[in-house]
Amino acid sequence: MIELQLIGIGTGNPDHLTAQAARAINEADLVLVPRKGDAKSDLVDLRHGICAAVLTRPVRVVEFDLPVRAAGGDYLGGVNAWHDAIAQAWAEQIARHLPDGGRLALLVWGDPSLYDSSLRIADRLRHSGVAISVRVVPGITSLQALTAAHAIPLNDLGAPVVITTGRMLRAQGWPEGADTVAVMLDQGSAFAALAPGGVTIWWGAYLGMAQEALESGALEQAAGRITRTRAELRARHGWIMDIYLMRKSRPD
Amino acid sequence: MIELQLIGIGTGNPDHLTAQAARAINEADLVLVPRKGDAKSDLVDLRHGICAAVLTRPVRVVEFDLPVRAAGGDYLGGVNAWHDAIAQAWAEQIARHLPDGGRLALLVWGDPSLYDSSLRIADRLRHSGVAISVRVVPGITSLQALTAAHAIPLNDLGAPVVITTGRMLRAQGWPEGADTVAVMLDQGSAFAALAPGGVTIWWGAYLGMAQEALESGALEQAAGRITRTRAELRARHGWIMDIYLMRKSRPD
Ligand SMILES: C[S@@+](CC[C@H](N)C(=O)[O-])C[C@H]1O[C@@H](n2cnc3c(N)ncnc32)[C@H](O)[C@@H]1O
Ligand SMILES: C[S@@+](CC[C@H](N)C(=O)[O-])C[C@H]1O[C@@H](n2cnc3c(N)ncnc32)[C@H](O)[C@@H]1O
Repeated sequence: MIELQLIGIGTGNPDHLTAQAARAINEADLVLVPRKGDAKSDLVDLRHGICAAVLTRPVRVVEFDLPVRAAGGDYLGGVNAWHDAIAQAWAEQIARHLPDGGRLALLVWGDPSLYDSSLRIADRLRHSGVAISVRVVPGITSLQALTAAHAIPLNDLGAPVVITTGRMLRAQGWPEGADTVAVMLDQGSAFAALAPGGVTIWWGAYLGMAQEALESGALEQAAGRITRTRAELRARHGWIMDIYLMRKSRPD
Repeated sequence: MIELQLIGIGTGNPDHLTAQAARAINEADLVLVPRKGDAKSDLVDLRHGICAAVLTRPVRVVEFDLPVRAAGGDYLGGVNAWHDAIAQAWAEQIARHLPDGGRLALLVWGDPSLYDSSLRIADRLRHSGVAISVRVVPGITSLQALTAAHAIPLNDLGAPVVITTGRMLRAQGWPEGADTVAVMLDQGSAFAALAPGGVTIWWGAYLGMAQEALESGALEQAAGRITRTRAELRARHGWIMDIYLMRKSRPD
């Protein structure tokens, strides 16, 4: 029996780790750390740093190569094939390092509930016959890191919020019925396709990390500045993760 | 000069406190703990418990009476008047306990960005002439406590999510364009007004606390069960906080 713990670790600031997460890491028999290729080796180091900081007993920490997502093809089909490959990679690590079962910890970026596939991959393992129980330890999300960095509320008073992706924003435009939209997983400037009038944007990249960058302002003025800053930072660091919140001012 | 820290403390599980929050509490000159009347004295005790658990130096922890919101009248007007009264109460505590300025910490339930008015109240203080800087320390939200307790993702693969209130759900029905809706601040069973077909609900009350209760299932069957459970628990404990996530199954 594998007891899988999906442990939210926040999005770059090791200080965002909760006491529950620190304890869960210590209770593991094995911590698996995914390697995603050279550009993102910072993120591997960050996970090792967290383990080193919180471990008070010797726990095995093992790196493994995360399968790469195939480019092209249809989006959902590609993602599904990729998740199958990741489940396979987890199963191999389990067979090698926990042949008699035990507690497996995965350090999940941010919170395991938010645009993260670990829960879906665990389901695949279960369906492929691995006896596995799953526990989730929540973590601070990039969206919370964004609102905290700008010291802004997520919602207007009593009003709804939409959380969506760059892909959906591009395809569907401003979501109906919401003043506030948070956008994640944007490959670049999906906001540029919107009518900018009356919209304020708060943007953040590498939140919680040394490279952290923030921009905000009326979308009309800020859009170009954010697009340029993003391109520069991406070129400088070789990768980027960014997120933004947009709000339409309410007509009173 | 007042340096205000709005510190997210999670929603009942003291283990959800982050290292950053523990540090910020220790760095304060004054921690203000709001008293909300007898029924919710559990929540005052919980804040004292957190301070006792994390403080490694003597920090003044002071309770004050949170003004009560006037019943009736229009919703936004009532809320605005209430926020004015809270700003006034903060100002009085500051004048009494930090006459020469200093670091003021407020322990905010969950995350300060999510359906919480501390940031708006701090703005009021600033506009009324108090010299104040604001820093936000993110905390685990009740929505994350919910998804973690049920071990479910917030979103479908790459799909948007709407976060809304019971009041808005009642007024507007199922939000357009979203398969997943999270509902907070529901005075009771706003889901009952929806067409339940094809909807799954995950519900949680007192998340992270000893009284924690969970229910889930097809909305058709679960709605009545949740409404009954909620009424029972509310009568037993004198108060309730609950939250739920609903998802429409996608037609494939
Ligand atoms: C696959 S999702 C994972 C989200 C994560 N589970 C969370 O709770 O934030 C990756 C997206 O999260 C956002 N993100 C994650 N970490 C970030 C950071 N440190 N700064 C800015 N955005 C970040 C970006 O929008 C990125 O495209
Ligand atoms: C004023 S809002 C504050 C939300 C808080 N800032 C957060 O981050 O979760 C209060 C609402 O949050 C939800 N909530 C807060 N704590 C909860 C708990 N322990 N269990 C269930 N729901 C909770 C309920 O929907 C409640 O009506």
